[in-house]
Amino acid sequence: MPVPDEKIFPHATGVAAKTVEEHQAPQDLVFYAGWFCPFVQRTWITLEERGIPYQYKEVNPYKKEKHFLDINPKGLVPAFEYKGKALYESLILCEFLEDAYPDAKPRLLPADPFERAYARIWLDFVAKSIVPANFRLLQAQTRDAQEDARAALTAAFAQFAEQIQGPYFLGEAFSLVDVAVAPWVVCDYIAVEHRGFRREGAGAKWVEYAERLEKRESVVRTCSDKEHYAEIYGRYLRDEAQSEVAKATRASRVIP
Amino acid sequence: MPVPDEKIFPHATGVAAKTVEEHQAPQDLVFYAGWFCPFVQRTWITLEERGIPYQYKEVNPYKKEKHFLDINPKGLVPAFEYKGKALYESLILCEFLEDAYPDAKPRLLPADPFERAYARIWLDFVAKSIVPANFRLLQAQTRDAQEDARAALTAAFAQFAEQIQGPYFLGEAFSLVDVAVAPWVVCDYIAVEHRGFRREGAGAKWVEYAERLEKRESVVRTCSDKEHYAEIYGRYLRDEAQSEVAKATRASRVIP
Repeated sequence: MPVPDEKIFPHATGVAAKTVEEHQAPQDLVFYAGWFCPFVQRTWITLEERGIPYQYKEVNPYKKEKHFLDINPKGLVPAFEYKGKALYESLILCEFLEDAYPDAKPRLLPADPFERAYARIWLDFVAKSIVPANFRLLQAQTRDAQEDARAALTAAFAQFAEQIQGPYFLGEAFSLVDVAVAPWVVCDYIAVEHRGFRREGAGAKWVEYAERLEKRESVVRTCSDKEHYAEIYGRYLRDEAQSEVAKATRASRVIP
Repeated sequence: MPVPDEKIFPHATGVAAKTVEEHQAPQDLVFYAGWFCPFVQRTWITLEERGIPYQYKEVNPYKKEKHFLDINPKGLVPAFEYKGKALYESLILCEFLEDAYPDAKPRLLPADPFERAYARIWLDFVAKSIVPANFRLLQAQTRDAQEDARAALTAAFAQFAEQIQGPYFLGEAFSLVDVAVAPWVVCDYIAVEHRGFRREGAGAKWVEYAERLEKRESVVRTCSDKEHYAEIYGRYLRDEAQSEVAKATRASRVIP
């Protein structure tokens, strides 16, 4: 059986293509990415936000190259190659950048231990409540399953919105909590167009925050043209996607 | 319908009861705990391991007191009260202790950013692969479901074991990765007695490591008498438990 995802559009377009072009020179830090992947975008936003030097390498996750698999047998993107060794998992990569590049400004986690732990509680909320509900909604094929997932996603955004201190989640400073949720904000038009999702359902505070996030320069610089996302998300909407996230969602398993 | 968990045995016993007794005096850090909860035990091991002053308060999670819910509306244990504010989520609390008590030795996360990120990858593995498989196995009621979950748990332990550098996961130093997995080692006899689990199935390296963990002083000091765990785990084995973890496992949802 052909794996439809192998025919994935091969590279970033639009604004993101320019960002890729500016990051082709060899660097200590190699960023293995997929232009369309929301998990990749978290790490990418962090790199751009903090001005950390990196070399961008596009990986088709369904046709992985040997060197990439040699250093990163699990094969997931986003991944870093740093001094010949690999790291992966989007938020772990973002925290690695905090630790490894302490002088790159702005820092995205608060210095105060209590505030830092509070930020991690909401990173955990995004991972456990927002992200799974988003994929469940996209992949839901029956009206009941769609209604259930749409309610869950809307409720999760609303619960998150209650805690927004404004203008960003933790207050004045843009933080990793904003980074973690941003990719699911910029692609929510897919759920609007195909699954009856409405930002307004999560309240005015959410709407305002979502609009602020999608205008943030680091977010804009990591977004490709919408037409190519439509092609990718079409596979999720027909529940045909073969990514690890799609398979886990289909099987009601934990997203790896 | 009566909630059977309300009749939970009300306090720690055995070695853990002595540890509780030594931590009754008021402190800046209040530790809201449940003596039987493996997530609580992670945080408790960390506090004991690093000699951090704390006041232990037992919470029956099914009969929560007003002050506890006032500062921690989600109501989950483990939780900290620190300068009048609450934090929760077991590993977030452990990381908070790293940040807030940098002089308490030993540190449980490596200082090197790459090694720290590597440790976080395996913390993530414990959370996503070991813990859910453990609860699935305990709660599985049919022979097929038990076999499937037993295979998943054994495979997860084996995959983890491959990376043990020895004597502890990251090498000489006992770390947060060891802390994160330890509670699921000390209670694995339940799965041995009732679900046909065998440590040997995960290989000799796993067996040796598991025996080392269960002898670690901080682990011993946070374990109650086995007879009382049997009462708690009986509810899981009959799939009657009403904890958030049990409900999530039953519904194939992400463990909160």
